Amino acid sequence: MTATIHQIGGHRAPSLDPILKLVAPEMNKVNAVILDRMQSEIPLIPELAGHLIAGGGKRMRPMLTLACARLLDYPGERHHKLAAAVEFIHTATLLHDDVVDGSDMRRGKTAANLIFGNPAAVLVGDFLFSRSFELMVEDGSLKVLKILSHASAVIAEGEVNQLTAQRQITTTEEKYLDIIGSKTAALFAAACKIAAVVAESGEAQEMALDAYGRNLGIAFQLVDDAIDYVSDGATMGKDIGDDFRDGKVTLPVILAHSRGSAEEQKFWHDAMLGNRVSDEDLLHATTLLRAHDAIDDTIERARHYGQRAIDSIAHFPGGEAKAALVEAVEFAIARAY
Amino acid sequence: MTATIHQIGGHRAPSLDPILKLVAPEMNKVNAVILDRMQSEIPLIPELAGHLIAGGGKRMRPMLTLACARLLDYPGERHHKLAAAVEFIHTATLLHDDVVDGSDMRRGKTAANLIFGNPAAVLVGDFLFSRSFELMVEDGSLKVLKILSHASAVIAEGEVNQLTAQRQITTTEEKYLDIIGSKTAALFAAACKIAAVVAESGEAQEMALDAYGRNLGIAFQLVDDAIDYVSDGATMGKDIGDDFRDGKVTLPVILAHSRGSAEEQKFWHDAMLGNRVSDEDLLHATTLLRAHDAIDDTIERARHYGQRAIDSIAHFPGGEAKAALVEAVEFAIARAY
Repeated sequence: MTATIHQIGGHRAPSLDPILKLVAPEMNKVNAVILDRMQSEIPLIPELAGHLIAGGGKRMRPMLTLACARLLDYPGERHHKLAAAVEFIHTATLLHDDVVDGSDMRRGKTAANLIFGNPAAVLVGDFLFSRSFELMVEDGSLKVLKILSHASAVIAEGEVNQLTAQRQITTTEEKYLDIIGSKTAALFAAACKIAAVVAESGEAQEMALDAYGRNLGIAFQLVDDAIDYVSDGATMGKDIGDDFRDGKVTLPVILAHSRGSAEEQKFWHDAMLGNRVSDEDLLHATTLLRAHDAIDDTIERARHYGQRAIDSIAHFPGGEAKAALVEAVEFAIARAY
Repeated sequence: MTATIHQIGGHRAPSLDPILKLVAPEMNKVNAVILDRMQSEIPLIPELAGHLIAGGGKRMRPMLTLACARLLDYPGERHHKLAAAVEFIHTATLLHDDVVDGSDMRRGKTAANLIFGNPAAVLVGDFLFSRSFELMVEDGSLKVLKILSHASAVIAEGEVNQLTAQRQITTTEEKYLDIIGSKTAALFAAACKIAAVVAESGEAQEMALDAYGRNLGIAFQLVDDAIDYVSDGATMGKDIGDDFRDGKVTLPVILAHSRGSAEEQKFWHDAMLGNRVSDEDLLHATTLLRAHDAIDDTIERARHYGQRAIDSIAHFPGGEAKAALVEAVEFAIARAY
């Protein structure tokens, strides 16, 4: 495959195409591992896992592992199995999230728990999680095992923390950042960091890629939480206003609430408790969000973390991989528009 | 602590006392690891985990790890952390099981999912599962990690298999044995085998202890499934007839169904589909089970596996540890009466 060099800061909109092209041949190998290792003699397991795994998703996290390995000129293949392990952890958390949230849609399709039931979604999540550790054990790096087992515990803590913050309009921006740092950014960070571990690039590079992934992950989640109020099902793969109806206190709400009048604060309070879930209520919410620049400022916060992600890899030599990683950050932010 | 030697085959009923006494000082250390490592900055995590972990349970699996290590005269302490890891895996599966089954009771208390909700039970299960892998990584044995990550995947497969067999009166004894071999016996086997790994006793001893744990686990589950039709909530820590009402096709039902008349087979078919869930139906079910010796023969099957467990460790020198392990098997079977 011929390498294609993309210019940064040109006129076209930032896209995932450069990073997709960069890792395409290797992603085929990762996908082969994923398909092979989600198999089981119990037919329901590949059936349910396949609904979610084969059914789309951007493979953001394994893509990051592959791209970071390219950035480091890692010539081996160990990271294929590990990238699949990362995707299995992510898929397991998605399955459990959808049970926890009672989701209707995921990746533009009916959520697995609605088709196969909550019990199967919980148990197949457990299977994929166990399988991810089997993959890591096969690779044999205790350091990678440490990074990903710790990331998994942090993700679960973040999810529980999010659960306890649900419907609590008093949730602070600090707590919100804690939550998304755990539930989303921890796995982005780990996905990037393990590339430096297999490439044996040393601690400084491990920390640089950890910081890239972590800041990208925070930016990514901030934009996701903004999009939840401005997108439609087709763009997002889930319904607009899901967070609003679920009483998830995300940054747009935190900003609009803290900047709002007493009357507006009462609206947000009631809404997060689930007493304002009509289409009119959602329309009113988006009007308030606009009035207080809550969406724009959420994106502005995302831009801040995005810049930190880009600066984390500033010292790496330029080239196709670095350009793709930078544009991935720009894309994560630009997709809000 | 002074060692107490118990006679086997005496007049008193088999009990867990010898194995409890054998491992008591070390179990305190395991409990300290468990209490320490179930902590989190997110208060709901230790609160929910503590409800289940601190709230009782026999600690069968970590007890087996400790007793097997004593059998091998292992002088170290590595197995304390690993026994805690085994208990965390078990606790995670209990939390997820109760969500899957919609259980009301667990260990004689209200099930965690009823108090804290299904979402929290799912996520804290995930946390404990991740934490168990962190403990294994700290120990640093890839061999132990391989054994326990594989056991975890097999457990999840067994649970999914059980789910697909639910309400299917055509489930065969072979499939039932597959299911309990996965969902229960795999972790018993792993708990015993890892003692031989840390003691570096060689493959023959690893296989012997794996076989001991696996056969004990099957016997244990067979007796559990028999007790479900003869016990009461106080003895069992859960309600009598739970399996019957949930349409779980366990061996007593498989035997009574296959030995029954066409009319009786229709009763079982309807019952497993959930159309016969009254107290009278349960009474009729137990009458049929007795008429066909289905409970006694389930216990007889358990005795077979129990004997295999005991024979698996026949070549080990006699002593306190071996006597305690033998009596644990006898207890597992005798508790049906």
